[in-house]
Amino acid sequence: MSRVAYVNGRYVPFADASVHVEDRGFQFADGVYEVWSVRGGRLNDADGHFDRLDRSLGELAIDPPMSRGALKVVLKETIRRNRIRDGLLYLQVTRGQPSLRQRPRDSTFPDPWTPPSVVATARSVSAAGAEARAEQGVAVITTPETRWARCDIKTVGLLPNLLAKQKAKDAGATEAWFVDDLGLVTEGASSNAWIVDKDGVLRTRDTQANILRGITRKTLLGVMAGEGLKVEERPFSLDEAKQAKEAFITGAGTLVLPVVSIDGAPVGDGKVGPVAKRLRRLYIEEARRTAI
Amino acid sequence: MSRVAYVNGRYVPFADASVHVEDRGFQFADGVYEVWSVRGGRLNDADGHFDRLDRSLGELAIDPPMSRGALKVVLKETIRRNRIRDGLLYLQVTRGQPSLRQRPRDSTFPDPWTPPSVVATARSVSAAGAEARAEQGVAVITTPETRWARCDIKTVGLLPNLLAKQKAKDAGATEAWFVDDLGLVTEGASSNAWIVDKDGVLRTRDTQANILRGITRKTLLGVMAGEGLKVEERPFSLDEAKQAKEAFITGAGTLVLPVVSIDGAPVGDGKVGPVAKRLRRLYIEEARRTAI
Repeated sequence: MSRVAYVNGRYVPFADASVHVEDRGFQFADGVYEVWSVRGGRLNDADGHFDRLDRSLGELAIDPPMSRGALKVVLKETIRRNRIRDGLLYLQVTRGQPSLRQRPRDSTFPDPWTPPSVVATARSVSAAGAEARAEQGVAVITTPETRWARCDIKTVGLLPNLLAKQKAKDAGATEAWFVDDLGLVTEGASSNAWIVDKDGVLRTRDTQANILRGITRKTLLGVMAGEGLKVEERPFSLDEAKQAKEAFITGAGTLVLPVVSIDGAPVGDGKVGPVAKRLRRLYIEEARRTAI
Repeated sequence: MSRVAYVNGRYVPFADASVHVEDRGFQFADGVYEVWSVRGGRLNDADGHFDRLDRSLGELAIDPPMSRGALKVVLKETIRRNRIRDGLLYLQVTRGQPSLRQRPRDSTFPDPWTPPSVVATARSVSAAGAEARAEQGVAVITTPETRWARCDIKTVGLLPNLLAKQKAKDAGATEAWFVDDLGLVTEGASSNAWIVDKDGVLRTRDTQANILRGITRKTLLGVMAGEGLKVEERPFSLDEAKQAKEAFITGAGTLVLPVVSIDGAPVGDGKVGPVAKRLRRLYIEEARRTAI
């Protein structure tokens, strides 16, 4: 569990970490978030996530709560105070809590200006446990794409995602892939979706589509280019996924995680494939290089 | 402003009304809400909103936090402690805050079970001010429909709605109507949309579409039937709206509110029409009959 949370300028015991009920994050999902994987006490892919945070805030016209340098200090201190070696760092920024003199629960932006709310928490995740899971691979299910048109913004409006996650859990799976009206996989509920197609080509959906611009995805594309692997940012259908040689998911929470079954049907021979396994190792090495 | 809020079993000073940062409402928009209009200290359309609350909770598999009778007591007490004669009562129910011993920010449902969070606030709205606004009518703008596929559930995932509301405010308007790919008006950002079409028929979108099942809308349909008015629950296009004799919006926050312009173009002669004006009066009379 977390010991300490950063909440609007203070480090507080986790049990006391609260926000006002008028915080726009609570009433309207009017906020964004980022998650960093932490290995050896350092933030993986640090700047990639900061860049995306800036973009998410910009798209919603929420002011950056502080400079990137100051935010890094906060996040590092949150890791330190929680004594995290391997784990996850969570940062949430909302449009803030309007002054109590303003009209409560006003759907338009606070006027006068209100500082954004900033919450950071961290928790340990066993690196050995994560590696063991990656050795086994995971099951995914599929579910119809129901989300809004701006999934490129990493908002806390995650209800469709968590309903999909729960559906996966109920089916004994780890992740759910959204499938659109055309039968194409868009992305996972908390990850990007990949296959090694029957021709051996690495495929993942392009980010012109309505999906999150994954940071792990982006770094991995760089790794693949460096390795001279054949990659296409092109959507794949559920049928193509079921005929693929391998499948895997990427995200800060999972890094590169092999998928061994889709809707109960084995992918390839139903075992973790060599490409996904190698890419996981290469990603972890690459992420370490930029970790702070 | 609010004086007192009900938060998870206690009436607290509004300034102290807070929830934990792990509340699923704050992190995931994993919750629903209702708003009742209050006139003369009583809740309008009381059971209609309770029925919809039950449905929203059911669709998300969130347990009802307490019996309807107990919830009524809480809401009435919230009105009383805030000394509200005319205003709005806001109720939010989320999937709760998992025990601090559980894994933080777990996207699947809390296991073991966690009680839902319940927050109620109330604020005064000048009835005279509301009537004056209804006499003037309001402007609406339009914006592309971007929301998810389950707008029938009244979730707190309101970011698309408030972005539309802000766009309306920036344009000097009161409400934004979402328009889908076919050019049809779906509904307003916080109201249902109606016209009196060029043939004099009252039109509003059917609730088989992806819209909220408005309680004010429902009560008003009953009023219209009682008056023998010609009504069709059938979508109308933006073009039809611009050629309509009258337009109006309905919701707990607005009751029945005449629309006098759409995207800057006058509706009819640009003045409040007789049908909308009469329906507002009839709705208020009808709502009073069931108020508690």
